[in-house]
Amino acid sequence: MTPETNSVTAPAITPPQRVLLGPGPSDVSARVLAAMSAPTIGHLDPEYLKIMDETRSMIQAVYSTKNEMTMATSGTGSAGMEMCVVNLIEPGDEMIVGVNGVFGTRMRDVAERSGATVHSVEADWGQIIQPDAVAEALKQHPSTKVVGIVHAETSTGAHQPLVEISEMVHAAGALLLVDAVTSIAGVELLVDEWNIDAVYSGTQKCLSCPPGLAPVSFSQAALDVMDKRQSKVQSWYLDIFMLRNYWGGDRVYHHTAPINMTYALHEALRIVLEEGLEARVARHTLHHRALRAGLEAMGLSYVPEHSLTTLNAVRVPEGVDDAVVRKRLLSEYGIEIGAGLGPFKGKAWRIGLMGHSSTRRNVLLILAALESLLAEQGAAFTRGAALAGASDVYAPA
Amino acid sequence: MTPETNSVTAPAITPPQRVLLGPGPSDVSARVLAAMSAPTIGHLDPEYLKIMDETRSMIQAVYSTKNEMTMATSGTGSAGMEMCVVNLIEPGDEMIVGVNGVFGTRMRDVAERSGATVHSVEADWGQIIQPDAVAEALKQHPSTKVVGIVHAETSTGAHQPLVEISEMVHAAGALLLVDAVTSIAGVELLVDEWNIDAVYSGTQKCLSCPPGLAPVSFSQAALDVMDKRQSKVQSWYLDIFMLRNYWGGDRVYHHTAPINMTYALHEALRIVLEEGLEARVARHTLHHRALRAGLEAMGLSYVPEHSLTTLNAVRVPEGVDDAVVRKRLLSEYGIEIGAGLGPFKGKAWRIGLMGHSSTRRNVLLILAALESLLAEQGAAFTRGAALAGASDVYAPA
Repeated sequence: MTPETNSVTAPAITPPQRVLLGPGPSDVSARVLAAMSAPTIGHLDPEYLKIMDETRSMIQAVYSTKNEMTMATSGTGSAGMEMCVVNLIEPGDEMIVGVNGVFGTRMRDVAERSGATVHSVEADWGQIIQPDAVAEALKQHPSTKVVGIVHAETSTGAHQPLVEISEMVHAAGALLLVDAVTSIAGVELLVDEWNIDAVYSGTQKCLSCPPGLAPVSFSQAALDVMDKRQSKVQSWYLDIFMLRNYWGGDRVYHHTAPINMTYALHEALRIVLEEGLEARVARHTLHHRALRAGLEAMGLSYVPEHSLTTLNAVRVPEGVDDAVVRKRLLSEYGIEIGAGLGPFKGKAWRIGLMGHSSTRRNVLLILAALESLLAEQGAAFTRGAALAGASDVYAPA
Repeated sequence: MTPETNSVTAPAITPPQRVLLGPGPSDVSARVLAAMSAPTIGHLDPEYLKIMDETRSMIQAVYSTKNEMTMATSGTGSAGMEMCVVNLIEPGDEMIVGVNGVFGTRMRDVAERSGATVHSVEADWGQIIQPDAVAEALKQHPSTKVVGIVHAETSTGAHQPLVEISEMVHAAGALLLVDAVTSIAGVELLVDEWNIDAVYSGTQKCLSCPPGLAPVSFSQAALDVMDKRQSKVQSWYLDIFMLRNYWGGDRVYHHTAPINMTYALHEALRIVLEEGLEARVARHTLHHRALRAGLEAMGLSYVPEHSLTTLNAVRVPEGVDDAVVRKRLLSEYGIEIGAGLGPFKGKAWRIGLMGHSSTRRNVLLILAALESLLAEQGAAFTRGAALAGASDVYAPA
């Protein structure tokens, strides 16, 4: 080793064991970490192709879809967003995007970069997109090709109903694109029943897998639209036409899949299906209710009217320093929660109860820790009310 | 668990312990797999930001560059290629691409999708791109903004000299973009000394890390060109302008980095720097020489005139069935080697000796296995010559 390289060789990593109650990543099961560290094999090895096939089948099950074009994109959730948009959109196409937080804003940006003429349907951050507003936009822009909407707005905690909007979109002859990053495997998400044409997600939320892959799925109607494209997809890396030959029967080499990340996702999906989707959604609902009872008993109010069960965005109480509380949670308790974004910067916390992190232990822990820290900061609330409120939810009827 | 989800829940993965001597992935050290399975923490956790900083410093060291804009892209090597191209190219820009294999062909495709007017400088597969041909192209297309070339053409094993071409490119006022996927940490690669303006690589070759990240680096000249862009980068996910704020001091949230993959890369880089770049390049050279002596003693000829030390593309002997040999190597020996691509489909093997796979043990193993299988297929060669040839290279002078 030369002295120069010696000086930049970092010590071995020693990441601490956090309790991940932020907007993602969530806690990862030891089973998933163990699977991820299985021996790396070739991406065209028959043993790996079998793992890819099984992974696809399990993604289909978790999305409640029979869509053949279902796969894990070799990138994070935002790559999944871009994959959906760039494959559906050609320059000059019209797209309606629901914008009520960071991820709707991002989808609009991605669509514009793909050459779409974007019509935004806006709502205040924390609110859901109103079906009437989508109907109005579809009426004003009858040539709309795709309507994009965020099912679970991670920046505000808003839980967007989709069924009514899906009916409108299809009645207008458009396709429905859904961001399910924070909803997959945490809240009800029925891709086929709700007639969703393109959906993407991330691995690091309610799937409780490390970040790095984006499960996506496309309906036959979406594939039919892609087959009629006049121009090549602007992204080579995310081109579904080529990826269909790689994830499909032909196994035509496209890129080298992230082998060990696929191992991790495979195990994470196994855990989801072992629990069962309905039981998993019920678990997220239960712990959300308990947390909510506790937070509200401490006087904290929720940002969204329609809150996700997987992400709890609450207002920072008057006189409490947002950053101090988060820093002390991290340094003294090893607990991560998320900061507010955009208009909620410094004004809200985002407490995730996703996947492996959604447990009674974590609900009581975060309530206890917050009660202790908020009391120190002089916030006014009845001591003990938070834990009592949460416990009531857990108590047998 | 419902009966339906039960039926798709796959069994736990049990990937076998292969010996990876194909075109990548290469064998991954147990140290890297262990680091990868360390607890997942938040991507904005101070402990993770430290790991990102250290990772960047070590990528700089391995690329022999001081470029500040050096990072690991959240995708595989092909995402690194696309990142470099889409950030440098605006619609209508002229780009020269050296095309002598799969990856030059891919770069041309990516550039065209970015709106570039591409001028190809071609060579037969297996040959290098001739500096004279680049000079001629630069003369014919004086407005060329970027020249893209593949340092290590994984599809043919050709090792492209860069110094002379770099001088021409810069004399013509253009930028040099280099594909270093199969060269990083395996053959000499001096980004600053050779005046490379944009370079990308993958983790699964000579870095011996699982696939999933793409180390990239941009010179100040490249950043200056990006700063003068008239249009947004067409890819949101790969937009350097935003990623500079995420990997830079501001840590502005862009996407959730693949935490555990970063752990793996961090450890893989540590291993590279512990060995030292010069010693590592010398090791790859030694084992390549031994393998080459052995293969040639068995009558196998190399495809490229200028062969990489990291990838050995050799012609399948007359009368030998390419696929049978590869399948038997995999099933009976657990050894992966690569098939030929394009014009070499069925006609060449690609034997990688990359990173952790580049060892005397593997050289003698693959030679012994090939000798045994080729003899069974009736290939004509002197038994024992291959191992003797390789051993001679290892023998003290």
